[in-house]
Amino acid sequence: MPTPAPRPVILDGDPGHDDAVNILLACSSPELEVLGVTTTYGNVGLERTTYNARVVRELIGASFPIYPGADRPLVVPRLSAEAVHGESGLDGPDLPTPTREAESLHAAQFIINSVRARPNKITLLPTGPLTNLALAFRLAPDIVPRVREVVWMGGSLDTGNWTPSAEFNALCDPHAARIVFESGVKLTMFGLNATHQAIANPARVAAFRQLGTRVGEFTAVLLEFFAEHHRERYGWDGGALHDPMTAAYLSAPELFGVQPMWVDIDTTEGPSAGRTVCDVWKVTGQPPNADVALTVDADGFFALLTERLGRYP
Amino acid sequence: MPTPAPRPVILDGDPGHDDAVNILLACSSPELEVLGVTTTYGNVGLERTTYNARVVRELIGASFPIYPGADRPLVVPRLSAEAVHGESGLDGPDLPTPTREAESLHAAQFIINSVRARPNKITLLPTGPLTNLALAFRLAPDIVPRVREVVWMGGSLDTGNWTPSAEFNALCDPHAARIVFESGVKLTMFGLNATHQAIANPARVAAFRQLGTRVGEFTAVLLEFFAEHHRERYGWDGGALHDPMTAAYLSAPELFGVQPMWVDIDTTEGPSAGRTVCDVWKVTGQPPNADVALTVDADGFFALLTERLGRYP
Amino acid sequence: MPTPAPRPVILDGDPGHDDAVNILLACSSPELEVLGVTTTYGNVGLERTTYNARVVRELIGASFPIYPGADRPLVVPRLSAEAVHGESGLDGPDLPTPTREAESLHAAQFIINSVRARPNKITLLPTGPLTNLALAFRLAPDIVPRVREVVWMGGSLDTGNWTPSAEFNALCDPHAARIVFESGVKLTMFGLNATHQAIANPARVAAFRQLGTRVGEFTAVLLEFFAEHHRERYGWDGGALHDPMTAAYLSAPELFGVQPMWVDIDTTEGPSAGRTVCDVWKVTGQPPNADVALTVDADGFFALLTERLGRYP
Amino acid sequence: MPTPAPRPVILDGDPGHDDAVNILLACSSPELEVLGVTTTYGNVGLERTTYNARVVRELIGASFPIYPGADRPLVVPRLSAEAVHGESGLDGPDLPTPTREAESLHAAQFIINSVRARPNKITLLPTGPLTNLALAFRLAPDIVPRVREVVWMGGSLDTGNWTPSAEFNALCDPHAARIVFESGVKLTMFGLNATHQAIANPARVAAFRQLGTRVGEFTAVLLEFFAEHHRERYGWDGGALHDPMTAAYLSAPELFGVQPMWVDIDTTEGPSAGRTVCDVWKVTGQPPNADVALTVDADGFFALLTERLGRYP
Ligand SMILES: [Ca+2]
Ligand SMILES: [Ca+2]
Ligand SMILES: [Ca+2]
Ligand SMILES: [Ca+2]
Repeated sequence: MPTPAPRPVILDGDPGHDDAVNILLACSSPELEVLGVTTTYGNVGLERTTYNARVVRELIGASFPIYPGADRPLVVPRLSAEAVHGESGLDGPDLPTPTREAESLHAAQFIINSVRARPNKITLLPTGPLTNLALAFRLAPDIVPRVREVVWMGGSLDTGNWTPSAEFNALCDPHAARIVFESGVKLTMFGLNATHQAIANPARVAAFRQLGTRVGEFTAVLLEFFAEHHRERYGWDGGALHDPMTAAYLSAPELFGVQPMWVDIDTTEGPSAGRTVCDVWKVTGQPPNADVALTVDADGFFALLTERLGRYP
Repeated sequence: MPTPAPRPVILDGDPGHDDAVNILLACSSPELEVLGVTTTYGNVGLERTTYNARVVRELIGASFPIYPGADRPLVVPRLSAEAVHGESGLDGPDLPTPTREAESLHAAQFIINSVRARPNKITLLPTGPLTNLALAFRLAPDIVPRVREVVWMGGSLDTGNWTPSAEFNALCDPHAARIVFESGVKLTMFGLNATHQAIANPARVAAFRQLGTRVGEFTAVLLEFFAEHHRERYGWDGGALHDPMTAAYLSAPELFGVQPMWVDIDTTEGPSAGRTVCDVWKVTGQPPNADVALTVDADGFFALLTERLGRYP
Repeated sequence: MPTPAPRPVILDGDPGHDDAVNILLACSSPELEVLGVTTTYGNVGLERTTYNARVVRELIGASFPIYPGADRPLVVPRLSAEAVHGESGLDGPDLPTPTREAESLHAAQFIINSVRARPNKITLLPTGPLTNLALAFRLAPDIVPRVREVVWMGGSLDTGNWTPSAEFNALCDPHAARIVFESGVKLTMFGLNATHQAIANPARVAAFRQLGTRVGEFTAVLLEFFAEHHRERYGWDGGALHDPMTAAYLSAPELFGVQPMWVDIDTTEGPSAGRTVCDVWKVTGQPPNADVALTVDADGFFALLTERLGRYP
Repeated sequence: MPTPAPRPVILDGDPGHDDAVNILLACSSPELEVLGVTTTYGNVGLERTTYNARVVRELIGASFPIYPGADRPLVVPRLSAEAVHGESGLDGPDLPTPTREAESLHAAQFIINSVRARPNKITLLPTGPLTNLALAFRLAPDIVPRVREVVWMGGSLDTGNWTPSAEFNALCDPHAARIVFESGVKLTMFGLNATHQAIANPARVAAFRQLGTRVGEFTAVLLEFFAEHHRERYGWDGGALHDPMTAAYLSAPELFGVQPMWVDIDTTEGPSAGRTVCDVWKVTGQPPNADVALTVDADGFFALLTERLGRYP
């Protein structure tokens, strides 16, 4: 049986620790062809996330172009997550200085152009607020049915992390999330209920370090920095590694269990602002608009990640 | 060691199947002294819930007075639950015809009078919408710090049952719930996350039947009727027995694990209307205003219930 | 033609300057029989408004009973208006010390008892937040169709005074207002759009002073104090005399033009919280639920007021 | 004194009757240089508004390019106004068939490119929902301080026309309006409170017809069609001519009185959704973010319009 052609993907995010690992995973996965990385505000500001994407590209000598996008949410004021991600969003490891610049085309326009050029082929992997996708979908409604799939890290089926109701990426721009969830695009959501099942505990961090490579060390240091916050809040012995589930899901879908569900986005400004309201028990009568990840094979996920990151020299 | 005096309680609810079992449990528990039952709209209308309370009183030959209260929520329109609870709210078993009437005093006024008469002594066990308590707290703010404790069945830490966000009792009157949760009263919440841990499966139902008493048979038939809905929606082999956890908690607190938490009530009319927003991870910085039940010893709970109901001749 | 029997009324309010004048007007109007005054929080706290009602009763040697009611809104936190009304709510004139106490029955219960005793006879004149009426309507839904009429000072067809959207009485307790407006009770609303048409300018104030009586002087001083705020905000040469329009409307309806309209109350917590949304142009298709005052014969109104207050010795 | 260079403007709207007249006015005003017309959904769908813009261009043999933009609001579902504007949005007059196509560049991108090319020079005249401007402002935040001015027809200081609270353009996309009003751009708002002061009564319509030109007849027939709705709802003897106030304001600002004000946009989904909350009395303490039109010299406005439209052969 011939190897299938790799699946073209655009990574959209706010690197940031776990976005960085998602880029590393996607670029080392033969199942994926990274067409570009689009950046957004989020964990830190847009200038910093764009810089961080360039750092990661430099680290692995990759060739994907980088397109900066939204510097703020559609409607609500910008939150910031510096307390969790540090000033730079990549606090922790020693970082190379990037040499290549970002592109001048807007992230949303790059997404539009790409989908129009290769209809029904391109998968979008957003791992931050959904502002870039929402802008693209509103600027070019024609692309929505021509996106192959969206796999998003964000939201939560149960409790949030930034408020009791909402996960950070969803809370950052609830209106953008609503646009994407109501768009009819094929959509999978990896929320906290899923990502909190895969903790980067010391043994798993050690496995990255034992790769004995620059990428392995980079990842280990990143995860150690990121872990502190999780230890403090949740009492876990490591951080959840949210964003790389999106790339892992494309490479190894068998590691994850998903269920189709109606998901509504709370765009009020009340105590449930930004909640991804998941109709688990089918009480609304609404048809599913997303596959919601419910189960994760955590050992399999970390084994995949370690194996893939081990491919970097 | 002398037996402590029984704790005076007022049961406030919308019988309804599981409210009925809560009355049976409270009246057979030596730890409790039932001062009265106050009724509200909810599963069915106020006239019916009041009638049903009289039926239960008749069944066990009890002497507590019954005070009808609110026939509708404070602000929003009334929901109804006839689909789950049947036309009468006690569909299923053969029922005695009640002989004694309800009182004419309003439920809220009975609560006010009782607390003023015995300050710091009285525990309120609401197992329906919180409208009666909210009315009492607003009519007589002086009683709030003089209520010994409120133990409520309602809300949910995770998913709802009437909408994806909200449990029925909370959704019926979110404004009343907000009044009670913001009041500063000592408060414990048994939400769906707790009550769904104790399913009245066929073996447990059989245990009631094997009591060989009228009350045992009544309870078994009630639970069988009630179970159908749960089987259909959740795929469980029995119904959750929500309301009796409130009386059980007073008699046998060791069966339950609770955690102090900030709980906010969503009074928007968006997709999270009526949600009890529980700050599990302490992200808001707000001080706890309720103990939220997290764990249930289900076997212990059903054993208690069977033993207590077995006391009826 | 025989004189009709005077119409029994209950004055519900938060005296406060213009509530005080409304009491003076109602008690001197042969068309009205003041059954009692019920008090609420509002311009100042409940203790103070109750005291102020007693002061006014003392001033005119009246015999009506006074029933304290709600000390806070149903759902939202309490606002206060001390900046406009002064510390006492009656800052300005020298005040007698009241000798007679307030009753212990709650305002809402007094309203309920009164309406039940004289069904279809009693008119309620609320001139503050509608909390007492809302409590009465929820405690005793049977009285709603038995109230003869409610004439409320509150709301606005156009702009607000406490926010750009909302008038103070409506904003204080939007949920109470919604309860009353949705109740089906016969209802007339004197909003700012009407009351701002009758300014107590210096000539009108002088007319009260020229009565040469204690009540005339009291009213003049009150109005002068109250005027300062209006001069500053609106650039008017006097204060609007809001509350006495309710009693005047009963005595001399020919002074006012009203129009039936659908009025919705904004209970969101957004920028239009507390707005009385008046369907002036009949765009909603909803049937009218209130008569909204549109026009005022200001000279006629002040002439009536001066004549009536002149009856006090 | 030399004639100042004409002011470059982009007309953004949803023609539609009064948008059409605004284009006619702008193109015949020597004070203005029409760089382009951008279209949006609104009165009718985007395809139709774009077609209508082409019709108007054909009618007057103008050369401006036309850029289609948003086909729906950012967040909420699309409203439609076919009942008022007819199926075509230009029902009424005989219309030429357009020969020249619209451009393929998106309206928002045209706005961005234009402002970047001529910073601080370009005035935007939106006369429909603000979606295109909001998209441009979010895609390119750098342009916001480089727009010379925005003059919008939309909103209302008092009552709405589509709901009691909201004017149609504002209600169509409250989130877009909020983006523009919160952006810090120099902004003037012509709401219904202003535009309802200039009614196209039969004498004014006759003046257009008496021009004896194709454009005069076109305008007369348009206004007659448009008038019917206004006669029915408001009892006026003609329609309000909303949109052309924006171009008229640039040509003859002396015809209008404006006042700086804080304006908040209600993005709740309650009864005040889409309201432009104008802080007329300065009660919020917020600094002004818009000039709100309060007064209109209606005769002067129609005289200007007739004179300008009379310039077409
Ligand atoms: Ca991320
Ligand atoms: Ca119940
Ligand atoms: Ca008052
Ligand atoms: Ca328009």
